[in-house]
Amino acid sequence: MSFRVKMEQTAKNKKSNIILALDFPFEKPENREKLFTKAEHTLEAVHPYICAVKFNRHLILPLGLFNGVQKLIEKVHDVGLMAIMDCKVNDIGSTNQTIADYYYAAGFDALIVNPFVGWEEGLKPVFDVARKLERGIILLVYMSHKAAWEGYGQTIHDTETCEKMLQYVSFAKKALKWDADGVVVGATYPERIREVCGILGKKIPIYSPGIGAQGGKIQSALKAGASYLIVGRTITLSENPAETAKEIRDLANECK
Amino acid sequence: MSFRVKMEQTAKNKKSNIILALDFPFEKPENREKLFTKAEHTLEAVHPYICAVKFNRHLILPLGLFNGVQKLIEKVHDVGLMAIMDCKVNDIGSTNQTIADYYYAAGFDALIVNPFVGWEEGLKPVFDVARKLERGIILLVYMSHKAAWEGYGQTIHDTETCEKMLQYVSFAKKALKWDADGVVVGATYPERIREVCGILGKKIPIYSPGIGAQGGKIQSALKAGASYLIVGRTITLSENPAETAKEIRDLANECK
Repeated sequence: MSFRVKMEQTAKNKKSNIILALDFPFEKPENREKLFTKAEHTLEAVHPYICAVKFNRHLILPLGLFNGVQKLIEKVHDVGLMAIMDCKVNDIGSTNQTIADYYYAAGFDALIVNPFVGWEEGLKPVFDVARKLERGIILLVYMSHKAAWEGYGQTIHDTETCEKMLQYVSFAKKALKWDADGVVVGATYPERIREVCGILGKKIPIYSPGIGAQGGKIQSALKAGASYLIVGRTITLSENPAETAKEIRDLANECK
Repeated sequence: MSFRVKMEQTAKNKKSNIILALDFPFEKPENREKLFTKAEHTLEAVHPYICAVKFNRHLILPLGLFNGVQKLIEKVHDVGLMAIMDCKVNDIGSTNQTIADYYYAAGFDALIVNPFVGWEEGLKPVFDVARKLERGIILLVYMSHKAAWEGYGQTIHDTETCEKMLQYVSFAKKALKWDADGVVVGATYPERIREVCGILGKKIPIYSPGIGAQGGKIQSALKAGASYLIVGRTITLSENPAETAKEIRDLANECK
């Protein structure tokens, strides 16, 4: 079963399209155990209200992939959720493949990659590994931060048609061409979600980060066409992560 | 003292402008100790012929940043070399800052970042951390793989001047504007090195990967204007890494 279908079924079973970004601020290396415990407790509290957990370097770097994070991935799977690694892969092909090999070996169900690096000796080797292992690949199409206009929003000349095109439109087209399992478009730019949704139709779901701390709104992201909402600090830094996650989940379900 | 000056002095002291990319193929997690030993032995054999060691996810993911790699960084410093982390940073600002905080805390002297992510809430927080800690930042300008034309080689409309411009030219200009400590241009594209060198002059040095295994040539990269050559698999997978590194160092010194 493909990652795309597994995500759909998990979201349906859990009655939630909320993905928890399990991110915490920098901790001194000597506080690693405290950080692991905090991540574990957040996961235990929040899991009934989410469909997946997204990891980033906030945990990989201090805990280590096989020393600490792998145990958290096991816990994610034990409670019936999917585990996504947000590593924004953008290296040369042989390195990308090694990165993918390690993350998939640790148990991740999908990786987030940057299409800017291109296909040949770029992302092709990662798609090859993912297809072989039946894991997912999610493409960055428009990020959630202020400077997203500099790269993702720039106007380019399409190399095939020589026509003027917005960078994120070319990335959305690559998602179709490469048959990605999802794309990322920031909730802080609902008009971009709408445009990308117009290109992808129902073929590829949109994952939308930037809800809460970054200013993105649940209703506008879902109304524009996002399938999954990624929420991090609003939950992880909340005084009551479970309550906050439940509120967000309920609000998202009302918008459906 | 800035990273840029430290690199210059180290290369002068060591009479070498060769940077070892300490990369090895995927190893099963249970073989982590073997991988650590291999990396340690390669470093011990090769250090007299190089000025710096570049790390990538090939070691970070299996060994862990604070579990294994930090010990290797200490060894790199003990033999008077610089340690560069090739993590191609391309996330939102708060995440980039956390990534930089962890890598610098582990002892890295410089990080490689992707200018595509832009400045505000993108790379600015990384430059802020680097300046505070007197560490370096190296910008990707043109990568060494086949598909580099797709992103780095595309034609864009400059957002400030509205003029047509090549992406890598805009990145080289950003390196000047942001005062980066170095840029990366693949040795597989010596004509790009020449163009970028024409933009940067002597202000910012060019780091050139792709020598050997990827097909880049020492002489043509140096003649085109590269200051440092990054060599990985040609040395790490050699039957005699020390001999290979010495040959490459000597050849590079003859080209000066």
